[in-house]
Amino acid sequence: MDCLPCVLRQVLESSRMATDKAESQAKIMDEALMILANYKRYQSSPDIVKDMHQVVKRLTGISDPYKAVKERDIKTAKEASPLLREFVGNKQGKLYWALKTAATGNIIDSAIYNSLNFTDCLENELAKEFTVCDLNIFEEELKSAKSILIIGDNAGETVFDRVLIEYLPGYEITYAVRDEPIINDATLQDAYDSGLCDCADIITTGCGAPGAILNQCGAEFLSVFNRADIVISKGQGNFEALSDCRRPVFFLLKAKCAMIARRLGVNLNSYVFKYHRAEVI
Amino acid sequence: MDCLPCVLRQVLESSRMATDKAESQAKIMDEALMILANYKRYQSSPDIVKDMHQVVKRLTGISDPYKAVKERDIKTAKEASPLLREFVGNKQGKLYWALKTAATGNIIDSAIYNSLNFTDCLENELAKEFTVCDLNIFEEELKSAKSILIIGDNAGETVFDRVLIEYLPGYEITYAVRDEPIINDATLQDAYDSGLCDCADIITTGCGAPGAILNQCGAEFLSVFNRADIVISKGQGNFEALSDCRRPVFFLLKAKCAMIARRLGVNLNSYVFKYHRAEVI
Repeated sequence: MDCLPCVLRQVLESSRMATDKAESQAKIMDEALMILANYKRYQSSPDIVKDMHQVVKRLTGISDPYKAVKERDIKTAKEASPLLREFVGNKQGKLYWALKTAATGNIIDSAIYNSLNFTDCLENELAKEFTVCDLNIFEEELKSAKSILIIGDNAGETVFDRVLIEYLPGYEITYAVRDEPIINDATLQDAYDSGLCDCADIITTGCGAPGAILNQCGAEFLSVFNRADIVISKGQGNFEALSDCRRPVFFLLKAKCAMIARRLGVNLNSYVFKYHRAEVI
Repeated sequence: MDCLPCVLRQVLESSRMATDKAESQAKIMDEALMILANYKRYQSSPDIVKDMHQVVKRLTGISDPYKAVKERDIKTAKEASPLLREFVGNKQGKLYWALKTAATGNIIDSAIYNSLNFTDCLENELAKEFTVCDLNIFEEELKSAKSILIIGDNAGETVFDRVLIEYLPGYEITYAVRDEPIINDATLQDAYDSGLCDCADIITTGCGAPGAILNQCGAEFLSVFNRADIVISKGQGNFEALSDCRRPVFFLLKAKCAMIARRLGVNLNSYVFKYHRAEVI
């Protein structure tokens, strides 16, 4: 229920990204409210968000309302790349800080435009430690692992994830993105634009929701998901979609909303790298 | 449309104030979403908020879910009263700062618990100047006026309004409150608890919405509203309800949401004392 006001605010934002016409925006909100009234039919917020944004696409004919925003975020993240590499390179515990860098990428959408000085803001966020960090388990798993699946989140964050991948040399890395444009989440095009094709196999989840809802995902993704030795799930949307899943997953995210923070048992805005096994969460 | 997510968040909050039962909260949200889907039937946000909160009352049997919150805010405001009087008393331009104090009262609900040190926070807010201030017009009107109607907003803020009334000596002051409990808005009981009976005639608007929607107000209120030489309307809810009204009104508020700020042509969180005549707004 906590998600409903947020979901509604998000669809209003999307409608404004897609069209300047107040009449179209109102039509979108009308349909969005009908979907919201039936929220119990949905498995999770990513599921309902997907249907909401289908309305935006259908009523405006704009398939990717956040295209410009995503391009801007990828560009900004690329410009920050040398700083990220220098940051991790200068650290003791490089894997910890490479993971932390990938988690920090999650702020790029909100951080930049709330801060006059993006570099200061970024450095400040990078320096924050994880509140929960199952690095020991991750390092143990890495010893026997060959393949790693990373389930991506936002465009721009994708560039930060590249830094993490560079600290996982020798592993067969697959990077999964959304099957179609949904808010500012990364698609195939965004992954290519972020340069991820140089260091990972890029696939889509087969699911257009802003979270890998397994019973909506494609066969290729599910095969990789089930067989990968390690799965890293990025961001809140994937956490919501996968927090009850049966296979072990490492959740890597910033808890940006009160509900997710509560479920993770951390304060709002905490960074988390949490190992999940079916019996643990 | 910008109000819809906010209204939904507010009814969720109210449902949790009224009951601990998740099932009841879910029922309230179901009905609230049905109301929200019909938002075009409503004149303004205060109008829709009123119906939402009727649902909370009906499904929980709790007529005043914010009772404890309001008592706490009134107590806090009373404790701050000596500071408020000292603040205005030490100022040049006492009427300006008495108005500013009354406007600052609008923060009491949100300010206290976001700040470890309420006194510091309050002093900081008090010291902020109005962004828009039609004091000259107000002083001109005061010269010939005999009666002043103040339309109140939140409980707690009522105590701040008392300070303003002390700087309007010799006028016949009427203070209007909501006809029934609605969120944290002041009712008759809250006005009495705030000590307003010592310095004003207290009446209700006859309307249970968190804003004086004229076609829902009672005869007594409308008579005072139409005849008063000066009307001071406090807070965002009354601004929404009265911004198109035909008689002149002084709007005294803090612009706490982006939509209201836009309509007033000021930045978010600006303090405003604005004279309205039908042809002006």
